Amino acid sequence: MKNLDSDKKISSRDENFSAWYQEIIDVADLAEHGPVKGTMIIKPYGYSIWENVRNILDKEFKDLGVQNAYFPMFIPESFLKKEESHVEGFSPEVAVVTYAGGKKLQEALIIRPTSETIIYDAFSRWVNSYRDLPVVINQWANVVRWELRPRLFLRTTEFLWQEGHTAHATYEEADDFARTMLNVYKKFAEDYLAIPVILGVKSDSEKFAGAVQTYTVEAMMQDGKALQCATSHNLGQNFSKVFNVSFNKEDSTSDYVWQTSWGLSTRIIGALIMVHSDDIGLVLPPKVAPIHVVIVPVWNKEVDKERVTAKALEVKNDLISKIGLSVNLDTSDLHAGEKYYYWEKRGIPIRIEIGPRDLENESAVVVRRDTGTKENIKFTLLNERVKSLLIEIQSNLYGRALEFRNNKIKEVNTWKDFVKEIEAGNFISAHWSGEKTTEEEIKEKTKATIRCIPFSEKESEGKCILSGKPSHKRVIFARAY
Amino acid sequence: MKNLDSDKKISSRDENFSAWYQEIIDVADLAEHGPVKGTMIIKPYGYSIWENVRNILDKEFKDLGVQNAYFPMFIPESFLKKEESHVEGFSPEVAVVTYAGGKKLQEALIIRPTSETIIYDAFSRWVNSYRDLPVVINQWANVVRWELRPRLFLRTTEFLWQEGHTAHATYEEADDFARTMLNVYKKFAEDYLAIPVILGVKSDSEKFAGAVQTYTVEAMMQDGKALQCATSHNLGQNFSKVFNVSFNKEDSTSDYVWQTSWGLSTRIIGALIMVHSDDIGLVLPPKVAPIHVVIVPVWNKEVDKERVTAKALEVKNDLISKIGLSVNLDTSDLHAGEKYYYWEKRGIPIRIEIGPRDLENESAVVVRRDTGTKENIKFTLLNERVKSLLIEIQSNLYGRALEFRNNKIKEVNTWKDFVKEIEAGNFISAHWSGEKTTEEEIKEKTKATIRCIPFSEKESEGKCILSGKPSHKRVIFARAY
Repeated sequence: MKNLDSDKKISSRDENFSAWYQEIIDVADLAEHGPVKGTMIIKPYGYSIWENVRNILDKEFKDLGVQNAYFPMFIPESFLKKEESHVEGFSPEVAVVTYAGGKKLQEALIIRPTSETIIYDAFSRWVNSYRDLPVVINQWANVVRWELRPRLFLRTTEFLWQEGHTAHATYEEADDFARTMLNVYKKFAEDYLAIPVILGVKSDSEKFAGAVQTYTVEAMMQDGKALQCATSHNLGQNFSKVFNVSFNKEDSTSDYVWQTSWGLSTRIIGALIMVHSDDIGLVLPPKVAPIHVVIVPVWNKEVDKERVTAKALEVKNDLISKIGLSVNLDTSDLHAGEKYYYWEKRGIPIRIEIGPRDLENESAVVVRRDTGTKENIKFTLLNERVKSLLIEIQSNLYGRALEFRNNKIKEVNTWKDFVKEIEAGNFISAHWSGEKTTEEEIKEKTKATIRCIPFSEKESEGKCILSGKPSHKRVIFARAY
Repeated sequence: MKNLDSDKKISSRDENFSAWYQEIIDVADLAEHGPVKGTMIIKPYGYSIWENVRNILDKEFKDLGVQNAYFPMFIPESFLKKEESHVEGFSPEVAVVTYAGGKKLQEALIIRPTSETIIYDAFSRWVNSYRDLPVVINQWANVVRWELRPRLFLRTTEFLWQEGHTAHATYEEADDFARTMLNVYKKFAEDYLAIPVILGVKSDSEKFAGAVQTYTVEAMMQDGKALQCATSHNLGQNFSKVFNVSFNKEDSTSDYVWQTSWGLSTRIIGALIMVHSDDIGLVLPPKVAPIHVVIVPVWNKEVDKERVTAKALEVKNDLISKIGLSVNLDTSDLHAGEKYYYWEKRGIPIRIEIGPRDLENESAVVVRRDTGTKENIKFTLLNERVKSLLIEIQSNLYGRALEFRNNKIKEVNTWKDFVKEIEAGNFISAHWSGEKTTEEEIKEKTKATIRCIPFSEKESEGKCILSGKPSHKRVIFARAY
């Protein structure tokens, strides 16, 4: 399936970020639109990134005692209606099954947009006593939210995600757990995806439909817009009361459980693209790259082909068996230059070129995808150098993204500066009085929303950036995906 | 979530196999019915078995070069209608989305009952040249087939599975590949699930809707009924012609690709239960058991509790770190006997009991779930004995199932014997002339279907068991799930 598309030109990020994003997905062979509007086909290379995301997170979850399970995707319409703000939030987005098995259904079925309702109905059967708590469940599943303006990975009608759901004996335990999971996402984003993030609380109007409090992981894309990478909700007793998830306490009284839910979706691949990639193509952090190294044997004369390829194979097997890397040896019939470009577009972190002259020098040319830097490395030192280089690349991508982001968070104190900096594609740190009406007015005027009230932000006295009313804290505003 | 249900009585397999099956699922905490009829909630313990199935098979697939991808679950109604026998086969079972995003849809959407149509539509874009072949794709997904008589794991409206889809340049290559995948399933069933299977070809009336030929993996349950564990289809050019998946050959002519599809679903957990479990509860082969060993510390006096538990913990850590097992130490407040029963019902292959006297003897009591056999093993020998015992259990389960099955395959030559042996819950090996009308008549008269024309069956001259017409081969008849 190696279609030669070296003639496809990629837009520049600066000129047309939106077209560039779509083209990266295309040239890196990650995904394409499905036949039904808003749906996405995740192609093998794109899916292998998602598999890495899933495997890493799944292990983190299990280390914390999370158990996986699977709940039906069909939810009775009546379930969704039980929690008032939940149904308000999700009703406009749901897909509805009305016919099945050749007949009209008596009760229409909702395809899960999220599974709080169907899972907590099960919890009401599973939980009786404090001894049954906590319940800590996760599922990897597809969900459906109808999208009018779909974009691959970012907003698709059907997407893949994990959704965690827990029940606890106290408010404090639930809130602690919601924050613990937020930190799992933070660690994952920073240590694996090399995406620096801001943690904080959502404003009331941005929180999950049905939550007491939504904690969020926010990241900055290269166009200065924000992307919500994951969220973790403290649901209080909002759902346990309507689904009757109650338990007998040690003191023989009874109470409703305190709940959390938390999720991360295929959207994260959109973030991965928009944080690291460049005008050549995809750039991937080594820790989630499906292929770490591509080896390109180079020859002009047919006589060199065999010995160059033999050495390349030796290098490949060494990197696989001795450092446990995922390595691709490109023995296709393309010209070397075409091969370079082919793999650069796909974001392979390291390329190793081996030609006849390299054999004589007993070395190979090693090229970094993130910086384009080339170095000659003796074959005897190759394993070690590749190993350390992958660590350097991972760290460089994070550092570069962090510096980029930090330069684009602007602390502003006047409305004029607010507008100027938002237009310039920055994150804004500004005072906000806490009033919903002001939040709405800012959104209307600038398309900027409150991304979060950051945990790291200390109390400080000031005046709301728009209303001038007293404010005790700065919050982060940005335009967002 | 450890509900004490030791008072729940399990039916005996001999008296009521169907009730017994349902009760095993219940007491082993594997699954329960969802709120929408026919749907299933796979509980954490049941799901962890499915995770093992998935991880093992996924590795086998990848070793063969299979790539995972993900395709939308929404299929335009028009797609399903393109392949005539395919639409006939699946139309009665599909669930249909007619409303989404608050509006009636212009074209109704089918929720995938299987993904040939949507995947081959993508293949028509991906395949141009012989250089693009073979395409070898798999997806792990949920599918929906409306069930009027649902049974947990065996027939549920929504189920989980993997479906592989390939495209090849020649008929032979496709047929070879379909058979290769059949053998992957056979190996998995026999080596991991300890289920002996019969491989063969389906009769025309039992084959997949749209296939040229369906290869099948058939197993016998403890009630003598058959369960189809997995299938692999040679699709010929049936789909490539209607979805226009064509390619340019090396000789510059063009042709449609030759295709296969192959799948295994959560149904396999139903087989696992019905082949190995007993009147106490679930029995699991070690290679797919989520927990290999449960350790139960036993004490009467509080003073013994600490030292017994300390030793149990030491044993646990040893088994985990030195043999890489999954081990559970039961430190709950239940009585030892209750703990034994609790874990027996869940099919843990080995139980280790450690009490004060065992400490003095420097040994533990080791109990096999499959046979109930107990032995005293010195602590110094425990690791090695547990390791070898797991191999013995795995092998014993397979051997026992094989013997059971072989005793219940009856070669018959008269219609009277056919009826008698089918009523007695056996598989039948009998001559069949190849006529569809005879096959239908046999099904009407006895509820037995042709499970397969076994690969292992040699040609032999005989007379059709019902019609008396000349036949060249015996086939396997059975009642089936």
